Formats: sequence, structure tokens, C-alpha cells
Amino acid sequence: MKTVKYLLAEDQMPTAWYNIQADLPTPPPPVLHPGTGQPIGPQDLAPLFPMALIMQEVSTERFIEIPEEVQTIYRQWRPTPLFRARRLEQALDTPARIYYKYEGVSPAGSHKPNTAVAQAYYNQQEGVKRLVTETGAGQWGSSLAMAGAFFGIEVLVFMVKVSYQQKPYRRALMEAYGARVVASPSEETNAGRAILAEHPDSTGSLGIAISEAVEVAAQDPEAKYSLGSVLNHVLLHQTVIGEEALAQMEMAGDYPDIIVGCTGGGSNFSGISFPFIGKKLRGERNVRVVAVEPAACPSMTRGKYAYDFGDTAKLTPLVKMHTLGHDFVPPGIHAGGLRYHGMAPLVSHLLELGVIEAINVQQLETFAAGIQFARAEGIIPAPEANHAVAGAIREALRCKEEGVSRAILFNLCGHGHFDMQAYTDYMAGKLRDYEYSEKEVAMALAGLPSVE
Amino acid sequence: MKTVKYLLAEDQMPTAWYNIQADLPTPPPPVLHPGTGQPIGPQDLAPLFPMALIMQEVSTERFIEIPEEVQTIYRQWRPTPLFRARRLEQALDTPARIYYKYEGVSPAGSHKPNTAVAQAYYNQQEGVKRLVTETGAGQWGSSLAMAGAFFGIEVLVFMVKVSYQQKPYRRALMEAYGARVVASPSEETNAGRAILAEHPDSTGSLGIAISEAVEVAAQDPEAKYSLGSVLNHVLLHQTVIGEEALAQMEMAGDYPDIIVGCTGGGSNFSGISFPFIGKKLRGERNVRVVAVEPAACPSMTRGKYAYDFGDTAKLTPLVKMHTLGHDFVPPGIHAGGLRYHGMAPLVSHLLELGVIEAINVQQLETFAAGIQFARAEGIIPAPEANHAVAGAIREALRCKEEGVSRAILFNLCGHGHFDMQAYTDYMAGKLRDYEYSEKEVAMALAGLPSVE
Repeated sequence: MKTVKYLLAEDQMPTAWYNIQADLPTPPPPVLHPGTGQPIGPQDLAPLFPMALIMQEVSTERFIEIPEEVQTIYRQWRPTPLFRARRLEQALDTPARIYYKYEGVSPAGSHKPNTAVAQAYYNQQEGVKRLVTETGAGQWGSSLAMAGAFFGIEVLVFMVKVSYQQKPYRRALMEAYGARVVASPSEETNAGRAILAEHPDSTGSLGIAISEAVEVAAQDPEAKYSLGSVLNHVLLHQTVIGEEALAQMEMAGDYPDIIVGCTGGGSNFSGISFPFIGKKLRGERNVRVVAVEPAACPSMTRGKYAYDFGDTAKLTPLVKMHTLGHDFVPPGIHAGGLRYHGMAPLVSHLLELGVIEAINVQQLETFAAGIQFARAEGIIPAPEANHAVAGAIREALRCKEEGVSRAILFNLCGHGHFDMQAYTDYMAGKLRDYEYSEKEVAMALAGLPSVE
Repeated sequence: MKTVKYLLAEDQMPTAWYNIQADLPTPPPPVLHPGTGQPIGPQDLAPLFPMALIMQEVSTERFIEIPEEVQTIYRQWRPTPLFRARRLEQALDTPARIYYKYEGVSPAGSHKPNTAVAQAYYNQQEGVKRLVTETGAGQWGSSLAMAGAFFGIEVLVFMVKVSYQQKPYRRALMEAYGARVVASPSEETNAGRAILAEHPDSTGSLGIAISEAVEVAAQDPEAKYSLGSVLNHVLLHQTVIGEEALAQMEMAGDYPDIIVGCTGGGSNFSGISFPFIGKKLRGERNVRVVAVEPAACPSMTRGKYAYDFGDTAKLTPLVKMHTLGHDFVPPGIHAGGLRYHGMAPLVSHLLELGVIEAINVQQLETFAAGIQFARAEGIIPAPEANHAVAGAIREALRCKEEGVSRAILFNLCGHGHFDMQAYTDYMAGKLRDYEYSEKEVAMALAGLPSVE
């Protein structure tokens, strides 16, 4: 029998997250205060985050221990399996060895609980009673709602209004976990009211929802803000994925020549790739790393590496990242988790350093890839994950063309059981691709703040 | 750290299914030919099933080897985890030790692939090109669609019309796997046309959909019929669940005092319980086994143990089972997988023998249990599985009342990610309970065939 699954025993689960900041040849540019233009310090972030997370944000220690309580919860679904996609290889008739790490086995169906549980834990430790966050399609919001239920923390989620209306099922999941879900823009914040005054019919955006969540968290002394991607500590928590994958590839007696991940804010991509990139940065082992983003929201492939705000109302600090501008509102592609105007500063920094590559793919290619994957491997991927599948299939077909066998590892960050409307629309021929002109990109970037 | 998960290594996965027919004190009553009233033989079933499955249907060997190809596919998600529900225990403040086996980690999100994969394999071995089946909510149909994709077999699914219209997402999943899905009653069969002639607005039922599927399969020499529950061979394939649970309870250093499973046709209940019941029948170890069915479809608790048809159009053989009558159409409770008028003959036989118990629970209690479970354990159960959760919580609370610690094991047969509309309706107060009068039950049973 050919082995198709590499599963670590529970006691082989990593007990520390990997911090890539320890191995960077140069540190990423500092985060700046939007008022002064000066680098911010831990105290500037204290109204929004517990100190433990702020310390992780700036830490340069290579490994940061996963607290015992967090490990216990992780063990409910971790270590997650790593699969050899033998039937997909056969369907593609490729000499490539395709591996995928599968994060859809978590209770929320995606990788997001890896950081949600950690964040809820640290907030509870510091006495926080309420967590406020935003969500697009709802993967993040439902994960934080679950983590809040575990740690007895109230969760308030500002959900982008178009998703709130069109995707009631993840909202129902959040509410089942006990969270309160508010359609954004809302009347509950200054940021929301200002948007509604100008655009009463606004269907919202992630940037607006972040503004609302940050505003509420900053004003409530018992509340903190929680973000599901982009920030260093969020990426850090996701590295448990790649740490496991390192051990599992060793079990498989193989090592990836290429790692593929999909990118929205960058957290699942970082999770699978950073531990391998660490070995590359330390000169131990080389690997090609490919970030795949949607053509409809191409921050790394079409955006600018510049200081920008993380939100629409300009409430966040300024971070240097690949961005399409904080006013950019991507079209309604079904990969809601990839519809963010910016990219994690650490991922952007690695791209600038030439350590990783980035490509963008069109929506129709991603769904075709997802269907092919489902028929071969059984798992129907989330639309976000389809971008990674599409990237991996491209590389596998290149192996076939070149007659070379390479090991391709990608992260299947979630299942698509909540996303079947997207597949219905795809199979009915209702989806389309998106291509921006140079002029459109330039217009989106025109609103960037003038900070160097 | 308290262990919460008991996970077998891949090489500890059972390599044989357990056949309870080897250990029964008396065999179940024979299956009868509807025309002659005489026991049927293997040849009578040959138009509908491959011979390997027919032989399993009547086998009395204790263990039947799982074919290598089936094991390989099982290993993608098996062995499935067994959890100690420590946070639920805490929430209930019970001295009970609650364990649950979790089948929602399969690609289709439920236990159904355990038999779908096996059935597709045996059909492929015998050269079958097409499989025809029915589905209610779609858990079974999507599992067979997936298995068909793996083995290159076309799959045609007659989906109960009300589900086809109201639950488009499992339909989309079936179609993504490449299956053709037809709303039942349809114009494609005599059975369907006859129903539509009389009731043009019929929203269908499982009994009608079975009639359509059986008719198509019987007429197409390259096609066979496939059923997702009730039959002996289907229950057999599900025993991999209980075989794993036996080993996992041993890992936990514990043994269930009580096993709880939800019952529709009886397959997941049999899967978790039969290996334990086998030990009970052989006098090795006692255990209480509780089948939990919906009050809205109470075949075991309110029905009659009698010979009845498996379908509405009376195309199937007659089987002795607990039944509400083949014309019974249960109300539209959200646990679609439990809306079947009959019960698996083997399960019915065990109930008659006094080896197992049966209770029914109301819909609202099951959803309250599901929400409590989700907040404690993170996994949101399918509405069907909520019946098992409700039964387990009842037993745990009884332990509390009595001040006794017992080990309770239940099967969490699937996640509820496709069923969030049900939770939305529940949280909005739109669901109700159902209670039948004696007269209503008697009327439903009036149509039973007069066979003893």
C-alpha cells in the first residue's frame, strides 16, 4: 500500500512557534505612528492588544513557547495531517510529488483557530473581558468566536455588510458560539456612522470593519482588539503548521523543492512557509516559495511597497507593506479571505528581499483547480485555498513539461463546506475574471499617505 | 496536561469489519420476496447489488477483511479521533466521563464515506459503470458522489425535492464531485411519474426517492443500486468506527458504561455500538446501549415491529423492522438523515432481543444540546448528531443527580457546517417540537402489508 498520509503523534506536536524575525538578514521597516511619523513603541499598542502579544510582535527570539493551555486546545485537531496527493498526481499525469498540509480539520474548518485560540488565551491572562474584531467571509470571526467561548471572553464581530447579508451561515456559526455579530458599516461607531452618512447603501469593506472594531476596542477599557492576519504575532502563531510540516516531510523522506501558499493578509502562507524559509535564510536548505494571490486583489504583484494604513478610517499605525491603497475595495470574488488591500509586513519584506516569489491567478482557474482537486482527493477546498491548489497544479504541470520530478508542498488552509454557493455559481458559469489596467492601479495607489 | 484526544496510529486502523451476525443468539427474521412472501436468495438481489455485497449481507463470519484499496482511502481520514469531552463535562458539572468519536473529519464531513467507498469499490470490481441512489439532506449522496469520483463510476442521485430546493449546498457538493442530481419525484421513472400524476406538487420523500433509484438501477444492466443505511452490509462497513473506538477506549484506560448513538436508518449507531455489543453478546463485557431517534420520526419507540417495504412504491423486498409504515412522511425536521420510516433490521432485532434500548427526543432539546456542545468543544454537530449529543447529556446529568461517575461514549457522526440554516432557524425561535397522538400512529401503521 502506498502511504498517503503522514500523521505525527500527539507528543510530536511542536511546543514552540517559530519566529522568522530571528533569521531575517535585515529587520523590516518600523511601524510608524500616523500622527508623528515616528516609530511606535509597545505602549502605543497597549490600548489595543495585551502586552504578551505586543512583545511577540517585536520579539527576535527564534522560538516562542506555546502555552500549555493553548497546546491542550491545539491537540483537539493538531497535529493536522499532511497528505501525498497521489490521485491528483495521477490525474495530472505528472512526475511531481505533491504534498498538502490540511488545516480544514479544525472545528472551524480552517487554519484561523491557530491564532484565535492563542490570542484569546493571552487576552484572558491579562483580564480582558471582551474581544472586538472584524471579519469578511467569516472564517476569522467564527474562529475567534469559538476561542472566546473556550476562554469565557465575549466576542463582538463587525462583519462586512455584503457578507453579513449574503453569507448568513458563518454568521450563524459565530452566533452559535455565542458571539455578537454586527453588519458593518454600522451605527455603533463614529467610523461606521461617517461612512453611512456619506454612503447610506455602503455594503462595507474589510478596511471599514477594521476601523469600527479598532474604535470600539480603543474606547472600552475592558476590551481589546483582535486581528486574524497581517500582524507579526498572528503569523507567528500560524507557524505551528510549518513546524509540523517540517517533521512530516521528514517522515515522508522528502523535502519540498517548492512551497505554495495562498495570500490575503498572509497568515496561512506564513504558517506553512516560514519554518522552511528559516532554514533557507540560515543557509541550511534551499526552497522556492511561491505566494499566490487573486488577480482581483493583487497587492504583491500589482501594488506598491509603501507605508499605508491597515484600515479605511486611518485609525491604525502606518506599516510598510505591499498595498493597493487603503481605499481600495476589491470586487466581490468568492475568496473573501483574500480581499485585503495590503499584505503582512513580514511577507512584504521577504518579497522585497527576493526570498519569496508572488504570482496572481484568475478566479476561474482557481475554481477549476478546486473541482479537479475535489474529484481526485475528496476534499473540496475553500475558495481561498483554491488559489494554492491552482499554484501547485501549475508547478506540477511544469514538472510534466520539463520531465522533472519535484516535491511541491502547499497549504490547504480550509475546506469549502461553507462556500458551496461559490461552487454553484462557478458551475453555472456565473463567475468571471478580473484584470486591472495600469491606470486603475495607479488610481487606487493615489491615496497612499506621503510617508517614506 | 489532561489528554483530550485518543488517536490511533495509521497502522492501528482495523483491517476488518465486525459482523454482528456471527454473535446473535438468534438470526433476524428472513427478508421476504414481496410477490411470493417467501425468503429471498442472493439471486433475487443480483439486479440491484454486486455479489460481494450480497454475500456480506448474509454472511455470518465474525470478521470480514477490508480490501486494501478501501483501507488506503480510509486512511485519508481514519483512524478518526476519539475525544474526552472535558470542557463539556465541566460545563455540565457532571462526574460522568464523556467520550465522543468524531466522524466529521472525513472529506464529506460525516461517517457516510465509510460505506460509500466500500460500495463503490465492490461495484467497480464487478464492472459496474453507474451507481444510482437516493438522498435526503445529502450526506449520503455527497459521500457516494465522492466515492464514485475515486473509482471512476458515474453516480446518479435522486434527491428528495424539498431538500433539492431548500438545501442547494449539498447538491452543489455532489455536482462538484461529478454526480448528476435529480429532484425526486421526477419525470425520469415510472414511480416518479405516477406520484407526479397524482400529486403534481409533491415535495418528495425518502421512500419515493428510493423507488426511483431502485427502478433505474434495475433497468440498466450496467448500473446497480446503492443504499446508505439500513442494510446489513452497510452497517457492517460502519463498524470500523466501533472497532477503532474499542482500541481508543483501551488507550484511555476506560470502557463505556453507556453507548449513545442517533438513529435514522441505523448505520452510524451500528457503527459505533456493534463491536461493543458483540462483546456483550459473547459475555465478555456488559454495556448499556441507547439509540436516540427524533420524536418526529419515532420508528423504534412508537412504530411496530413488522414486515414492511423499504420504499413507497413497494419495489423493495419486505424486511421485518420497526416501522411507521412505508407511506409515513415525517415532518420537515432539520435532521434530514433521521427522516426514514423504518429501522435497520439488525438494529430492530437487537431491540426486540432487549440488547439495546431506544428513546426519542424532541427537536428543540437536540439543538440546545448542539449549541452547548459547540461552545464547550468547538465542533458544531450536524442536526442528526445533536440527537446523540442530547442523549449523552441526559445520561451525564443523570450521573450528576445520582452522584455516580459513568463512562459515556457517543458517536458524533458529522459536523454541521452544511446545516447552519437549521441553527439559524433554531436561534430565531422558528423550530418546533412534534408529538404524535396514538391515533396518528395507528393511522400511519394501517398501511402495513399483511405479512407475518
